[in-house]
Amino acid sequence: MTLSEQLQHKINQKTKPLGSLGRLEKIALQVGLIQQSLAPVINHPHIIVFAADHGIAEHGVVNPYPQSVTAQMVLNFINGGAAINVFCKQSGIQLKVVDAGVKYDFDPALPIIHASVGKGTSDYSKGNAMQAQQVHECIDKGRKIVADLHKTGCNCVGFGEMGIGNSSAAALILHHYTGLPIHECVGRGTGADDTLLLQKQKVLQEVSVFHHLSKGTHNAEELLSRIGGFEIAMMVGAYLEAKERNMVIAVDGFIATAALMTAHALDEKVIDYCIFAHCSEEQGHQHMLQYFNATPLLQLGLRLGEGTGAALAIPLIQQAVAFLNQMASFESAGVDTKKI
Amino acid sequence: MTLSEQLQHKINQKTKPLGSLGRLEKIALQVGLIQQSLAPVINHPHIIVFAADHGIAEHGVVNPYPQSVTAQMVLNFINGGAAINVFCKQSGIQLKVVDAGVKYDFDPALPIIHASVGKGTSDYSKGNAMQAQQVHECIDKGRKIVADLHKTGCNCVGFGEMGIGNSSAAALILHHYTGLPIHECVGRGTGADDTLLLQKQKVLQEVSVFHHLSKGTHNAEELLSRIGGFEIAMMVGAYLEAKERNMVIAVDGFIATAALMTAHALDEKVIDYCIFAHCSEEQGHQHMLQYFNATPLLQLGLRLGEGTGAALAIPLIQQAVAFLNQMASFESAGVDTKKI
Repeated sequence: MTLSEQLQHKINQKTKPLGSLGRLEKIALQVGLIQQSLAPVINHPHIIVFAADHGIAEHGVVNPYPQSVTAQMVLNFINGGAAINVFCKQSGIQLKVVDAGVKYDFDPALPIIHASVGKGTSDYSKGNAMQAQQVHECIDKGRKIVADLHKTGCNCVGFGEMGIGNSSAAALILHHYTGLPIHECVGRGTGADDTLLLQKQKVLQEVSVFHHLSKGTHNAEELLSRIGGFEIAMMVGAYLEAKERNMVIAVDGFIATAALMTAHALDEKVIDYCIFAHCSEEQGHQHMLQYFNATPLLQLGLRLGEGTGAALAIPLIQQAVAFLNQMASFESAGVDTKKI
Repeated sequence: MTLSEQLQHKINQKTKPLGSLGRLEKIALQVGLIQQSLAPVINHPHIIVFAADHGIAEHGVVNPYPQSVTAQMVLNFINGGAAINVFCKQSGIQLKVVDAGVKYDFDPALPIIHASVGKGTSDYSKGNAMQAQQVHECIDKGRKIVADLHKTGCNCVGFGEMGIGNSSAAALILHHYTGLPIHECVGRGTGADDTLLLQKQKVLQEVSVFHHLSKGTHNAEELLSRIGGFEIAMMVGAYLEAKERNMVIAVDGFIATAALMTAHALDEKVIDYCIFAHCSEEQGHQHMLQYFNATPLLQLGLRLGEGTGAALAIPLIQQAVAFLNQMASFESAGVDTKKI
């Protein structure tokens, strides 16, 4: 029997009707295959939040909140006051916060992973968001952060983000890879009203023309160079490294999935390591999920980012692994399997 | 401001875009209202599994597994080998198992709540499942079990069940309260094949006629007396008592929701205390959810019972309460709220 068949056999022998644990059975199988084990384990799950600023956001043409909120929220993460802090603490998940390129001088003593590639990207409505060299630097740093984490024993990770304006970059990535019109890719982000939403669509339509995005012909590095951001590019490296190290990846919402689309363009095998955590309320996320033919574990109407969807789903992954390892079989429990 | 307005204000001041925690915000509000508190807490969450046998199941006309499986699974619960054991352990939920009327002599020394009302119900295809006196005994015992649990400090509970044949009683309850035709109410239960499903529908159609179920005119006690089962009747009492004691109730799947429909017929306020945990794969459950205009927290394709859906959802309720209590406000965290 193949490992997949052996895992399915083990699942089918558990004291429950065949298939009655639904999605959790698929997750147990997937995690077993990722770890190449009949008895997989989830060790030291982490959320890594990548934070950075976006030049496009400086003038408020695509975002309702001021750019200063990115740095303020990073400090909020450090102080334990954000949603992702609460969710991680409640579920025994550890949290790492990365300065991928926030427009702020953080005290080097703060418990942040200091990996800044610049003080925010350049405004991509007028030129490229970053230089080619910065793209590589981001990917390398993202890889190294995950590699270092893996060395500490972590084998399950979710990537979150914070960056005022980053739902615009994510929408452009969706637009590039699917060819869907801008108005289907662009949503309200953290809360654009009707007027701002129309303006955001107009600005990003112009960006699409300026950067020739609609044809889907840029390679991943070129795309990142054109529209950024630092945190998205760093997440791309993080996904690629997590795949290399056979880690289970809980995929968060709109921006995290945009980064995954870009990572997928570089290495399509990354998807085998991914478990989609949550379907965001941000409209473009559903298109991304269709692109991957994915149904997330949760649909709770969240649209917050930070890795919150991933943090809520990781306990379900742990439950899937737990049933595979801990449930009795019909034989061991002395439960009749013979149908009448 | 009303308490509801105060809770909403507190939620809106958290460091996140308005409404961005979606369903969890609604849950936080609901739990605050149940506990009449701006700082609700979930204490000692429990799953109570009620087990009993059904006379209709003796001959295998509605169920693929032999009746002996009910008792065997109760012993599996006691030994920690079932799915509900694993899920509870993983999430720090305590588990109680109730013999509500299994056709088996359990050792009195076993850590079961011994509340048996009989060795399985009578076959309702030929007469009533139980006597009126037994219905009252079940409801009283269900009430007492929850009252005793509440006295230990538990304020959050989910009810699960085990009983070969009980998806038939649940289907008949759905049929009674909604008037939907039998074939829309009856599903595969633990795994009826096409032949057995047709036979199950035929038998239950005859039962509907025999017990005059289609008109929805029986009161709750009369309905329980006619088609049972002991575990369902005991869950009815459990729901009613949990409501009396302002407990948060996580509503499991098809059979647990059938019991809730019956409890709701006795006290419609019970629904205010309920959080629907999971949408079962059993087809009739979706009709029940429509009846209550409810969208469950989870949709993972489970169809196992035992309270497994409730056990998986309780951590999400805990997350909702945690964000309400622990997240920083914009003011306390120094995060800008002013839109550009």
